[in-house]
Amino acid sequence: MAFQTQMQAAREGIITQEINRVAAKEHIAAHELRQLVAEGLVVIPANKNHTRLDPEGVGKGLRTKINVNIGVSHDCCDFQAELAKVHTAIELKAEAIMDLSSSGKTAGFRRKIIDESPAMIGTVPIYDAIGYYDRNLKDITAADFLEVVALHARDGVDFMTIHAGINRETVARFQKSERVTNIVSRGGSLLFAWMDLTGQENPFYQYFDKVLDICAEYDVTISLGDACRPGSTADATDSVQIQELIVLGELTKRAWERGVQVMIEGPGHMALNEIAANMILEKKLCHGAPFYVLGPLVTDVAPGYDHITSAIGGALAAASGADFLCYVTPAEHLRLPTMEDMTEGIIAAKIAAHAADLAKGVPGAKEWDLQMSRARAALDWETMFQLALDPVKPRRYRRESNAENSETCTMCGKLCAMKNVNLVLSGSKVDI
Amino acid sequence: MAFQTQMQAAREGIITQEINRVAAKEHIAAHELRQLVAEGLVVIPANKNHTRLDPEGVGKGLRTKINVNIGVSHDCCDFQAELAKVHTAIELKAEAIMDLSSSGKTAGFRRKIIDESPAMIGTVPIYDAIGYYDRNLKDITAADFLEVVALHARDGVDFMTIHAGINRETVARFQKSERVTNIVSRGGSLLFAWMDLTGQENPFYQYFDKVLDICAEYDVTISLGDACRPGSTADATDSVQIQELIVLGELTKRAWERGVQVMIEGPGHMALNEIAANMILEKKLCHGAPFYVLGPLVTDVAPGYDHITSAIGGALAAASGADFLCYVTPAEHLRLPTMEDMTEGIIAAKIAAHAADLAKGVPGAKEWDLQMSRARAALDWETMFQLALDPVKPRRYRRESNAENSETCTMCGKLCAMKNVNLVLSGSKVDI
Repeated sequence: MAFQTQMQAAREGIITQEINRVAAKEHIAAHELRQLVAEGLVVIPANKNHTRLDPEGVGKGLRTKINVNIGVSHDCCDFQAELAKVHTAIELKAEAIMDLSSSGKTAGFRRKIIDESPAMIGTVPIYDAIGYYDRNLKDITAADFLEVVALHARDGVDFMTIHAGINRETVARFQKSERVTNIVSRGGSLLFAWMDLTGQENPFYQYFDKVLDICAEYDVTISLGDACRPGSTADATDSVQIQELIVLGELTKRAWERGVQVMIEGPGHMALNEIAANMILEKKLCHGAPFYVLGPLVTDVAPGYDHITSAIGGALAAASGADFLCYVTPAEHLRLPTMEDMTEGIIAAKIAAHAADLAKGVPGAKEWDLQMSRARAALDWETMFQLALDPVKPRRYRRESNAENSETCTMCGKLCAMKNVNLVLSGSKVDI
Repeated sequence: MAFQTQMQAAREGIITQEINRVAAKEHIAAHELRQLVAEGLVVIPANKNHTRLDPEGVGKGLRTKINVNIGVSHDCCDFQAELAKVHTAIELKAEAIMDLSSSGKTAGFRRKIIDESPAMIGTVPIYDAIGYYDRNLKDITAADFLEVVALHARDGVDFMTIHAGINRETVARFQKSERVTNIVSRGGSLLFAWMDLTGQENPFYQYFDKVLDICAEYDVTISLGDACRPGSTADATDSVQIQELIVLGELTKRAWERGVQVMIEGPGHMALNEIAANMILEKKLCHGAPFYVLGPLVTDVAPGYDHITSAIGGALAAASGADFLCYVTPAEHLRLPTMEDMTEGIIAAKIAAHAADLAKGVPGAKEWDLQMSRARAALDWETMFQLALDPVKPRRYRRESNAENSETCTMCGKLCAMKNVNLVLSGSKVDI
């Protein structure tokens, strides 16, 4: 091959298999998609070693994608349970799965899900470093961190979160700030602690060119992590967050020069009225690179329901320019999610993504709603169930609450507006 | 008393007990609130016969309120179950409860909840007409409908949905339209059928002055119903919806001339990108009258999860000018809600309302989030639970998933960002 990455290929005018596949799924012309990939406005995360991948595009004009986080922690270390989550996430049509395993030896698990998953796989190499080396944080070197990145790249990871924006400049601004919730990114906090322990610059920033070399070789898309994302609505859109975003914009240009694909990670907690402005800011400061948001959670006061606070923020974010939504579950801020938490989180994120696609007029989006609405007007319950985002729950709801008249439901019975208006329009007389 | 309604009193410069009480709750000056009530920009639904009421204001500059629908249907006719829902709704701090009972003899139930509820009570008199008279729809006269309005007013109902906007002009436009889901308002469909059966004009439109007389006597706030709200995103913002809104704006002026308080009911199903425009349209066409929205549901494809589709739309609507959110439960489109459905619906609506209040900068809104975020940064779990919108679920989540280190949770364990960053900032060294 004459190219290493999708971006390099696209720039050389080559329409790769992956570009063709994504263009077909998105109902757009392959040559248009090629141009977007060449310019960095769309990424196709597709590691050369992820042979089972059915690629997806993320970025301008495309359907909003969602990511599902799975992985073991020190307290919840059941790889089988996490593998079951992977399969459920794929069944529920998540386009991406991030393995955020943060404890113990994770290589076998990572390789297994890459083997089995047609969805793109992401990781955060820094989470894996302590367990991989079985060493204290202070004793891990910059070279060690880069070796973990190379390891994940060889394993076939399609995109990696690299927290390269929390450099000394960003840290200095953070230390002058009066943040309520400081640094809430796990990777960001590890780097902040490591910089404090060693006195050295952030290794992913200092050796960013080496990171680029690794990522170019396997075509890993870099997801530039937002170590300083706001962890409270009070901290949103502050100088620390925006300082880091400026750095991420500079790193984006360097990645593009090397032909490496880039996404930018974003907030976080943020009140509704700040979201649209933040989308514009990211697109400007990061030169149109696709935006991958975690939330935003539009209020801090609803632990147990952050799939909803996040669906509100995510829908508005994606309608205003975000391209990729990280799911948030009801367990956010409380515990590692169970399978049930994960399912609720996926449905909520899918709703947010599709609501945004309707608003943005993404090709093919509104046809789904139209079919559902036609089935609803015809009181065609079976078609409604088949078209539902989750066909299982509505079927159960209706089964549990039977109406006397099987055409209607127990909410309105004979007063069903659909039924009665259909009668009048067909020339019959309503008899109630 | 020299006045019949809060609006009349306010116009005469009188600061009523109710205005004082609402001003205190909203952290605004009573004389400013009086002015808003006088102009119709805020309503205080407070029937003279609802003695147990703790009044709330709805409108410009005030906290976004939520309404909970309860009531029996033909298929689910357990008044005790509905009464239990009323108590739960009050515990969960719903500001309004609508009794939408649509079958059988409902007067006893209505009077009981008015007796017991400090929350404002709303009804839709037309739902009650068939059961009250035990007569077929075609045999109910215009005078009969008005008598049900008077009955509810005497019982102490604080606000009533009156579908006066679906007059012959609106119907003509509907019949020329190519709507996917026709008329989905239950009250609207009954009036449409009645007009078809009798050949007469909508009685609430034709005899609107009589409705005003009744409402003025007891100070019932009229909630002008949107019989032609869109039941699908495809039908949103169409000529039928807007035609009816024009009529509602005209009726608003007539109500205000009579000193009767008015709210306007709104969509419905609507894609995200149309919501802000619709809020502006309502405020212009209806002269700033408070806007009470049912949803909007931002996609049609998620039955079983319409509390989420509605929280997304409701949050954006309220942030863009809506004042009052009708809750929507997971049972929407499927069945009469259970207690559990109702609870989920209330929490989702409360999230949407508060997210909007943060965005609008409503006095007192952001302090709650700030307290929660401070507790979160301090890893003070007990305070987090106490501040949570729903304290029960987060407590259970944490109890079910114990971390080795009681300070952190099972998501991150010793990699807890909050804990480690706090350590560094306090001058200690992180040891992981």
